Amino acid sequence: MANRSSLAVVLAAGEGTRMRSSLPKVMHPVAGLPMIGHVLASARAAGIERFAAVVGPGADAVASFVAKRAPGTALFEQTERRGTAHAVLAARAALDEGADDVLVLYGDTPLVRAETLARLRAELAKGAAIVVLGFRPADPTGYGRLIERDGRLVAIREEKDASTDEKAIGFCNAGLMAFAGAGLVDLLTAIGNDNAKGEFYLTDAVEIANARGLPVIAIEADAEEVAGVNTRIELAAVEAVWQKRARRAAMLAGVSLIAPETVFFSHDTALEADVTIEPNVVFGPGVTVERGAVIHAFSHLEGARVASGANVGPFARLRPGTALAEGAKVGNFVEVKNAAIGAGAKVSHLTYIGDAKVGADANIGAGTITCNYDGFDKALTVIGAGAFIGSNSALVAPVTIGDGAFVGSGSVITDDVAPDALALGRARQVEKPGWATNFRALKATMKRTRV
Amino acid sequence: MANRSSLAVVLAAGEGTRMRSSLPKVMHPVAGLPMIGHVLASARAAGIERFAAVVGPGADAVASFVAKRAPGTALFEQTERRGTAHAVLAARAALDEGADDVLVLYGDTPLVRAETLARLRAELAKGAAIVVLGFRPADPTGYGRLIERDGRLVAIREEKDASTDEKAIGFCNAGLMAFAGAGLVDLLTAIGNDNAKGEFYLTDAVEIANARGLPVIAIEADAEEVAGVNTRIELAAVEAVWQKRARRAAMLAGVSLIAPETVFFSHDTALEADVTIEPNVVFGPGVTVERGAVIHAFSHLEGARVASGANVGPFARLRPGTALAEGAKVGNFVEVKNAAIGAGAKVSHLTYIGDAKVGADANIGAGTITCNYDGFDKALTVIGAGAFIGSNSALVAPVTIGDGAFVGSGSVITDDVAPDALALGRARQVEKPGWATNFRALKATMKRTRV
Amino acid sequence: MANRSSLAVVLAAGEGTRMRSSLPKVMHPVAGLPMIGHVLASARAAGIERFAAVVGPGADAVASFVAKRAPGTALFEQTERRGTAHAVLAARAALDEGADDVLVLYGDTPLVRAETLARLRAELAKGAAIVVLGFRPADPTGYGRLIERDGRLVAIREEKDASTDEKAIGFCNAGLMAFAGAGLVDLLTAIGNDNAKGEFYLTDAVEIANARGLPVIAIEADAEEVAGVNTRIELAAVEAVWQKRARRAAMLAGVSLIAPETVFFSHDTALEADVTIEPNVVFGPGVTVERGAVIHAFSHLEGARVASGANVGPFARLRPGTALAEGAKVGNFVEVKNAAIGAGAKVSHLTYIGDAKVGADANIGAGTITCNYDGFDKALTVIGAGAFIGSNSALVAPVTIGDGAFVGSGSVITDDVAPDALALGRARQVEKPGWATNFRALKATMKRTRV
Repeated sequence: MANRSSLAVVLAAGEGTRMRSSLPKVMHPVAGLPMIGHVLASARAAGIERFAAVVGPGADAVASFVAKRAPGTALFEQTERRGTAHAVLAARAALDEGADDVLVLYGDTPLVRAETLARLRAELAKGAAIVVLGFRPADPTGYGRLIERDGRLVAIREEKDASTDEKAIGFCNAGLMAFAGAGLVDLLTAIGNDNAKGEFYLTDAVEIANARGLPVIAIEADAEEVAGVNTRIELAAVEAVWQKRARRAAMLAGVSLIAPETVFFSHDTALEADVTIEPNVVFGPGVTVERGAVIHAFSHLEGARVASGANVGPFARLRPGTALAEGAKVGNFVEVKNAAIGAGAKVSHLTYIGDAKVGADANIGAGTITCNYDGFDKALTVIGAGAFIGSNSALVAPVTIGDGAFVGSGSVITDDVAPDALALGRARQVEKPGWATNFRALKATMKRTRV
Repeated sequence: MANRSSLAVVLAAGEGTRMRSSLPKVMHPVAGLPMIGHVLASARAAGIERFAAVVGPGADAVASFVAKRAPGTALFEQTERRGTAHAVLAARAALDEGADDVLVLYGDTPLVRAETLARLRAELAKGAAIVVLGFRPADPTGYGRLIERDGRLVAIREEKDASTDEKAIGFCNAGLMAFAGAGLVDLLTAIGNDNAKGEFYLTDAVEIANARGLPVIAIEADAEEVAGVNTRIELAAVEAVWQKRARRAAMLAGVSLIAPETVFFSHDTALEADVTIEPNVVFGPGVTVERGAVIHAFSHLEGARVASGANVGPFARLRPGTALAEGAKVGNFVEVKNAAIGAGAKVSHLTYIGDAKVGADANIGAGTITCNYDGFDKALTVIGAGAFIGSNSALVAPVTIGDGAFVGSGSVITDDVAPDALALGRARQVEKPGWATNFRALKATMKRTRV
Repeated sequence: MANRSSLAVVLAAGEGTRMRSSLPKVMHPVAGLPMIGHVLASARAAGIERFAAVVGPGADAVASFVAKRAPGTALFEQTERRGTAHAVLAARAALDEGADDVLVLYGDTPLVRAETLARLRAELAKGAAIVVLGFRPADPTGYGRLIERDGRLVAIREEKDASTDEKAIGFCNAGLMAFAGAGLVDLLTAIGNDNAKGEFYLTDAVEIANARGLPVIAIEADAEEVAGVNTRIELAAVEAVWQKRARRAAMLAGVSLIAPETVFFSHDTALEADVTIEPNVVFGPGVTVERGAVIHAFSHLEGARVASGANVGPFARLRPGTALAEGAKVGNFVEVKNAAIGAGAKVSHLTYIGDAKVGADANIGAGTITCNYDGFDKALTVIGAGAFIGSNSALVAPVTIGDGAFVGSGSVITDDVAPDALALGRARQVEKPGWATNFRALKATMKRTRV
């Protein structure tokens, strides 16, 4: 299909009132990416070159997302709701530029696969004028039935117009359609609105094309793939299918998921073989995990690169800008943000490392805090290779701890520490013998007095 | 039904030996509320005015829960186990007070809906003497079959007494029944115990009423709704149904649940539209979340109010008495207890805020601890609006940090800090050059010596 | 069967290329134990005395695991892959030692129950020469069908050789077989390789034994139990079945699991009745929890003993060597490692207790860190009974806090503290009035300057 020009018209103007949301429907995320983003990605993976999106009035969020995600997409506003054919014609300027293949997709049908879109295009390449995507729902009631004869699709019959025989057909219209670009505008403008709702239905193109002797066919997709989203229940169902797919793909690629149903991926999570992921791990966007790394239970990763053999969690949070080098360890109740942790370095417990560079084989004691923010600006902490930061220390940035240096437990470090030096910033211990005995007696007295 | 007087008799004397528990069966919680509490709540929502509970000997926990949850409930102890009719008659004093509608409910059938109880009552209002709640189990074997004729329920046939034709009936007795109050005691006392076990069965009332020419009917509930609990496996199954219902209701109301199956609600969780809840969130009792707030993954909330636009987690724990104002943020590894966090204030990491008031737009650095307990009493920490608490600080209560004040990182603050002042409570840093080199050499020597 | 000698030959040489792993297939864990460990455990529980394992070339990890887990197991390397009969004959030296019962098991079929293996042996005891384990898959396509006549198994027919009638048989070969030891080597050596692949199939023993007039039968196992693992998807499925079994067993024994599907056990987790486990709890190996203890949500336990009435979590991590005495409490964002926490002691928040003894009723404040590591060695912290450690303190080990002693909040404690004394190690607070006002002005100036 490399030599066929192509256009996808993505209908994204649905109001989504049943979502009960102030966010436009197609902007609701699946695996962290707005639904329409999935549709654009599948279309691009199917070789589509040019995009048009038909959006509702005031859908600025959709427009700006599409502009960023698929630059060059032509945006059209559908001001009136007069049916799917009318919606496609809203993008007439894009249609008029011409394309061999024109796909009509839906911004709220995010699970459609690139392979399926490629199959639609392959049928156009073989000479079809229209290719309709069908599916077989568990219960076809309410769906438009695909009426086939001699391998051709002759009509899409709505439930209310179907005969008893036609109602027995299980093969239904999924909505997605592909058109030969030549003659498409002519077809679309031939669609009338002589029906109960007075709307222009794209599905009418099937009968018009048949009347003109043009070849129309239907191909089948699995029902999961064409699921549309109208409520948050359906959104959650689509998310579940997406996650199930992603988990299977990861396992087939050699990733061990001990309890796959408890691991949540982002649309762009990248995992190498022999990575192990324990139960209850959540991936935000932008995570790469290399071979042999282990992500322990109850970890949350986002915008992080985890190198080979690194160990994360349990109870770790890696935030954007985290890079763990080979064999590095980030343990429980540790947050890392915008920081590079060197090879073999350990940040094992109850620590915040933000805006920092930690050298190879450094050891960061429990309770260490990099104080990277003064209320106005962020500043950098540099910890040298092989340095040892004693527990419960505060490193006030900007500050550099030299290679091989030691920081005594409980210190507040405000000045740079020379390599191989020991730095202490803590008070001398004093003891008041018997104080606790007196304190307890006092408290007991107070309690009696209160009563 | 407003003008019909009503009584619910809740049977709650089951020993629940198969629970293998020292807790009375009906006190085992579903969504954090004892099972009998759900039954009482549904009955009250169906307009029931008066309650009687029949409990087992020594069931103090049940008695005191019921007394608190539904004050005025008449409590009756069933000392002998002689069948369901005998159990209902244990509440005879309550029956004798009279009521138009008498419902017999079970403390271990917590999923029954108010709507279903209202349907039972509606049939009484239309003239039925007895209304039996039926259901269609996947496998009816073992259940009493509902024998209907001409729209009337003529008998409830136990499995062992059923003919082959009767065994083919899929409509079964769920146990819950509604009675016209007039004549009920007369019906109950007519029930005999001429059967294998010598027990008095409430189901016999159906045939007695028919013999007297009284109208008896059955209505259908779904099978999930009438599930009873005899083992912890069944308890977990009932909890799962309850959670599934709650998740669906939340999503329909406009709450986004990315992975609904990983979110656990309490019986009283209140969420507004456009709240987003990420995977793995647990709600204890008493939580309210307002529009637009986001509860990130791995969060645990209990007794907390989260205002509009607030951000919680990941890895946050809100304990009772927490109130987050608009746009406040509580981040990872943060515990908040009995504290109000002002609008726009940030408590982002590794912090304990207990018994405190945090002003609007204050910033609490990582590792901050409010030292609210001296081993005997709790004391209050007040942090002013716009204050900045440097990381790893300890605020020893009672203490007040003025508006706009700064606390230096790593400080122990024991005295009040004036508005716009800087407070420091940390030692001066000292450095011992080359100390680490010597220390490592010493350790190496010791290791050689040990071998 | 106590008086019948026995041998299990465990075939564990499969390469498992579809696992896409550098770890030998049978070493992939289920519930934290390599698959082959489950097979060995079931066999031992079925009274098997002697083991032989047939491993692939260079499978050192398998060999050393087996040597540790089942000392005395004879190890045989299968250098060529020439079929299952050939694999069993690789263990000929073990067969030649003789045994009444010889079971052929598979290292990648970890869910087989001891009860099922005992049933195989019971049939041998009754006189069978061969007992084949069968099962009824949802779809038998591709499995060898068990051809029975008059209660005898006459052949195992591979799919490709099966007649239409035979293909309709739903009873299939699970692979596991039991043999009377006498004559077994003779049977095995009679198996030829006159087939498409030129391999020696153990299943051919069935027809040979029938030809010799020896009694051969098949018994049935459930399909879950005989599931084999060839991919990580199948590994996850087997893990899921194992966990489902373990959860059911725990609930039947009186453990409350609020959301069973979110609790992950280890192969050796031991729980007493009336333990409550909230959602999202992960057990690593070596955990015992006693009656009445509560494990709150989001907890991770490994190598820990939790005594009666103790409270763990939410968000707690117990690492190996943890022992919580009766009524002890470990709260949120707390890590305990190699430490005994005394009866009634509380470690409620944001704390690391490592290499320590905490006395009864001690109270450890939020943010306390035991500094147990100096970069080379671990040292011990001892906290006396009734001691009170103020929040955000660092206890630098080795150090002893006496019974009833107090440590002031924010202290660094390097020297022992006498019983009932107060120890402080913190700087005096100083205040710089108006500093924050100036700081803000300065920052504002800088910002203007930058622009």
